[in-house]
Amino acid sequence: MTGPSYSVAEIAKRFGLELRGDGDTVISSVATLARAGAGQLAFLANPRYRSQLAESAASAVVMRADDAQGHSGTALVAADPYVAFAKVAALFDPPPPLQPGIHASAVVDPSARIDPQAQVGPFASIGARSRIAAGVVVGPGCVIGEDCEIGEGSVLVARVTLVRRVRLGKRVLIHPGAVLGADGFGLAMDAGRWIKVPQQGGVVVGDDCEIGANTTIDRGAIEDTVLGEDVRLDNQIQIGHNVRIGAHTAMAGCAAVAGSATIGSHCLVGGAAGILGHLEICDRVMITAMSLVTHSIREPGEYSSGIPLMPNREWRRNAARFRQLDTLARRVNAREKTPRDKED
Amino acid sequence: MTGPSYSVAEIAKRFGLELRGDGDTVISSVATLARAGAGQLAFLANPRYRSQLAESAASAVVMRADDAQGHSGTALVAADPYVAFAKVAALFDPPPPLQPGIHASAVVDPSARIDPQAQVGPFASIGARSRIAAGVVVGPGCVIGEDCEIGEGSVLVARVTLVRRVRLGKRVLIHPGAVLGADGFGLAMDAGRWIKVPQQGGVVVGDDCEIGANTTIDRGAIEDTVLGEDVRLDNQIQIGHNVRIGAHTAMAGCAAVAGSATIGSHCLVGGAAGILGHLEICDRVMITAMSLVTHSIREPGEYSSGIPLMPNREWRRNAARFRQLDTLARRVNAREKTPRDKED
Amino acid sequence: MTGPSYSVAEIAKRFGLELRGDGDTVISSVATLARAGAGQLAFLANPRYRSQLAESAASAVVMRADDAQGHSGTALVAADPYVAFAKVAALFDPPPPLQPGIHASAVVDPSARIDPQAQVGPFASIGARSRIAAGVVVGPGCVIGEDCEIGEGSVLVARVTLVRRVRLGKRVLIHPGAVLGADGFGLAMDAGRWIKVPQQGGVVVGDDCEIGANTTIDRGAIEDTVLGEDVRLDNQIQIGHNVRIGAHTAMAGCAAVAGSATIGSHCLVGGAAGILGHLEICDRVMITAMSLVTHSIREPGEYSSGIPLMPNREWRRNAARFRQLDTLARRVNAREKTPRDKED
Repeated sequence: MTGPSYSVAEIAKRFGLELRGDGDTVISSVATLARAGAGQLAFLANPRYRSQLAESAASAVVMRADDAQGHSGTALVAADPYVAFAKVAALFDPPPPLQPGIHASAVVDPSARIDPQAQVGPFASIGARSRIAAGVVVGPGCVIGEDCEIGEGSVLVARVTLVRRVRLGKRVLIHPGAVLGADGFGLAMDAGRWIKVPQQGGVVVGDDCEIGANTTIDRGAIEDTVLGEDVRLDNQIQIGHNVRIGAHTAMAGCAAVAGSATIGSHCLVGGAAGILGHLEICDRVMITAMSLVTHSIREPGEYSSGIPLMPNREWRRNAARFRQLDTLARRVNAREKTPRDKED
Repeated sequence: MTGPSYSVAEIAKRFGLELRGDGDTVISSVATLARAGAGQLAFLANPRYRSQLAESAASAVVMRADDAQGHSGTALVAADPYVAFAKVAALFDPPPPLQPGIHASAVVDPSARIDPQAQVGPFASIGARSRIAAGVVVGPGCVIGEDCEIGEGSVLVARVTLVRRVRLGKRVLIHPGAVLGADGFGLAMDAGRWIKVPQQGGVVVGDDCEIGANTTIDRGAIEDTVLGEDVRLDNQIQIGHNVRIGAHTAMAGCAAVAGSATIGSHCLVGGAAGILGHLEICDRVMITAMSLVTHSIREPGEYSSGIPLMPNREWRRNAARFRQLDTLARRVNAREKTPRDKED
Repeated sequence: MTGPSYSVAEIAKRFGLELRGDGDTVISSVATLARAGAGQLAFLANPRYRSQLAESAASAVVMRADDAQGHSGTALVAADPYVAFAKVAALFDPPPPLQPGIHASAVVDPSARIDPQAQVGPFASIGARSRIAAGVVVGPGCVIGEDCEIGEGSVLVARVTLVRRVRLGKRVLIHPGAVLGADGFGLAMDAGRWIKVPQQGGVVVGDDCEIGANTTIDRGAIEDTVLGEDVRLDNQIQIGHNVRIGAHTAMAGCAAVAGSATIGSHCLVGGAAGILGHLEICDRVMITAMSLVTHSIREPGEYSSGIPLMPNREWRRNAARFRQLDTLARRVNAREKTPRDKED
C-alpha cells in the first residue's frame, strides 16, 4: 500500500505550525522519535524523551519552541506538540473509503430506513423501525435491534450490538464487542425469589463519542441512560442503567459506573475505578485508577482511594495492623488524654 | 406503536393491591414520579423521593399505606411498592411475540434438535447434538456449540456464545456478548513452559437465571461449573471454572469469582468485587463493592475491604503512612509496655 | 460418543511415568479423586485431597512417589502429578478433527490468502490482504480485518475479532469474544474538546499464547503491542496500546494493563490486578489479586496492595481511622520526641 505524502511546508501551512528548517522534506508516515527514519515525522511532548531528539533520524519533529532552540534538524513548532501531532498523524491514516450499500448477506427489517450513503457490512442485522444516516458504517456482524438511530458519519467497527432504543449522535465511533442498550440490572426480592423490574428506557449517545471494545452501556429502567457529546470510553467499561455522563468526560479501561450515578463534564476517570450508584459527581473531577467513589463529589479536584503496592511480606504486616487501626487510635487518644505533668 | 392499557381498578385486582381513588383512570405506561404525566403510573419506594409525590402528575402511584395517608391522587397501596411496580410495569412491556422457526441464514448441524416452537435468528449457528426446547429464542449472531441444551422459554438476546456442553434451565435470559463454556484457565508449569490442562467439564445454569452482557462463565475442568436457580449476574462478570453459585444469589457488574470457589444461596456480591479461588462462602453473605474476599466466610452478614475515597492530597499522606503502620503499632505497643509509674 | 481408551501401561510408557499396580487396566476418561469410577484416571497433587485417595474408586491415580507408598491401587508415579495429569488428560480430549475448507456462508476478500488446509467457519469474514496458514481454525462469527496474519495451527474458537494488522504466531488459541487490534485509547485535549490520536500500530502475538474470552488487546499507537511466546491471558483482561508482555507470563481474569507498560517474562498477575501505564516490571514478578501496581518493579518477588476482607462493621471503624492515619502517626512521633526522662 502506498499512502499519502506531504512536504513539511504543506503540513506547517495546513495546521498553522511554525516551520524551522527544510520545508521541502517529504513526509509519508509518522514514527516514534527513537525509531523514526527518512520520510517520517515524530514528536516531542514529554520532556523525558528530550534526550532522544539529538539522535533521532526523523525527517521532521513536532516540538515546543524551547525544544526547537538549538535543534539542528527540521522542526514544526507547536504550543501543544501532542495535539499538533495527533492532527498531522491523521493525514497519514485516512479512514478506509466508504463503500455505500448493504452487503448481500445482511438482514434488514423492511421497516428499517437505511440511507443509500450508509455502508452495512456482512452478517449485519438491522431491526424494525431503526434508522441509519448517511456516511454511517455498520461493520461485519453488528446487531442493531428495534427502534435504534445512528447519526451521520458514525462507525460501528464490527460485532457491535445496539439492543433496542439506542440513539447515537453524529460521528460516534464504537469498537468491536460493545453492547449498548442491554437491560439494566433491575431486580426486586419477592418472597425469596428475584423478580425482574422491566427495563424500558433507552440509551442516548451524543455526537463525537467514542466507545471501546467490549464496553457495555445498559438501557435505562424508565428514562434513558445518557452520554453527552465527546464522551470517551475506553475498553471493558460498564455503565449501569440511568447513568448520565457529561460532555468531554473520559474514562479509562475497566471503569464501572453503577446505576443512576450522574457524572459531570470534563471529568477523568482512571482505569478500573468504580462509582457507586445514585451518586453525583460535579464537573472537572479526576478519579485515580482503581479508586472506589463511595460518596457524591461536589468540588472539582483529584480523588483517590486504595493502598499503594508494596512487597507482599511488608504488605502482610501492615495489612494485619489495619484490622487493629481503630483500637490503635483509641489507645493513642487515651494516652494523650492523661496529661504527663499530672502523671507523676 | 400502541401498547396495552389497563384501568387502575384492573391493575389493583390483577396484583391484589389496595386501590384508593379513581379506579377508572386508564394507564398505558410507567414513568418516574418526577416526569410522569396523564395515563402514566409511577411508584414511591425510596423515602428520599417522597417530596416529589405532591407535585407528581402521574395518574396513579404505587406506594406504601403510610405514604398514601393524606395523598389526594389515585394510589395503589402495596407492602413493597417496588415489587408491586415491577409486576405492574411488566404489563406494559410485553416481550416481542415469538416467531417460531429457523431463519434462512442460520446454520444448524443435522444432529441438532430444535423444537418447532423455538425461534432461531439470523446468522445463528447450532452445533452437533445440541437441543433447543419450545419457546426458546436464539437471537441474531448466537453461536451454540456442541452438546448444549437450552430449556423451555430461555432467551439468548443476540451474539451469545455457548461454547460446548452448556446446559441452560428454563426461562434463562442471557444478554449479548456473554460467553458460557469457554475453557477454564488451567495451566501447569513444565520446565519453564506452560502446558494447558484440558478443560472437559461443562456449565449448568438453573431455571430463571439472568446473565448480563459480556459476562463470561467458564466450563469446569473435569466436573461442571454450576449456577443454581434464579441466580442473577450483571454485565462483565467473570466466573471461573468449577465455581458453584447457590440459588437466588445476585452479583453486580464486573464482579469476578476465581476457580473452584463455592458461593451460597441468597448472597449479594457488589460491583467489581473479587472472590479468590477455592473459597467457600455460606448463604446470605453480602460483599460490598470492590471488596476482595481473601478467606472463606462461614457466618452470614456484610463484609468489606478497601479504603474510602478522599481528596488525592489527603490520600497521599495517609497512604504513605500505611507502609509504616506495623512499625507505628509496635512503637505504640512498646510505649504502653513501659508502665508510667515505673518511669520515674 | 465413544472416545479413545488406553491401558495404564500404555499411558505410563507414553509419558515416561512409573507404573505401580495393574498395567492392563483400561482408562477411557479422567475424573476427580472423589468422583472417579471404573475406567477413570484421577490425580493427587494437592496434599489436602490426600484423604480422598483411600476411598477413591478411580482405576488409576497419578501421584507422587511418597503418596504411592502403601497405596493399594494402581498408581502412575510422577515428580509433578499435575503436569503429568495435564498431559494424560489431553489424550482423552482430542481436538475436534480439522475440517479444511471455507464455509459457504463466509465472506472472504479476494486479496486474502487462505491455506487450503485451514478451516473457516460460518459467518466468518476475512479482510483484505490477510493470510491464514495451514491447520488454522477460524470459528463461527469471527471477523478478521485487513492485513492480519494467523500462524499455523492457531484456533479462533468463535466470534473473535482481529480488527487490523494483528499477527498471530503458531498454535495461538483465542476464546470467544476476544478483540485484538482495536484502537488504543489515545486522546489529546484541544481547546476543551478531545481529538483522537490516530492509532496506526498493530498487535503481535507470539507462538503458543492463549487469550481468554472477552479479553481485549489494543493495537499500538505507532509501534505494535507485543505478547511474547507462551503468554497466557485469562478472560476479560484489558491490554492497552503499546504494552509489551514477556514470554511465559500468565494473567488471571479481569487484570488490566494500561498503555505502554512493559512486563517481563515468567510473571504471574493475579485476577483483577491493575498495572499503570508506562511502568516497567522485571521478570519473575508475582502480583496478588486486585493489587494496583503504582510504580515500576525492578526486583523479582511477590507484591501486593489493598486491604483484607473483614466484617463491614469492623471495616467501617478501621476505614474511618485511615483518614486520620497521617495525623495519628504525627502525634505518636511528637510524643516520642519528648524524652520521658526530661519530662519531669
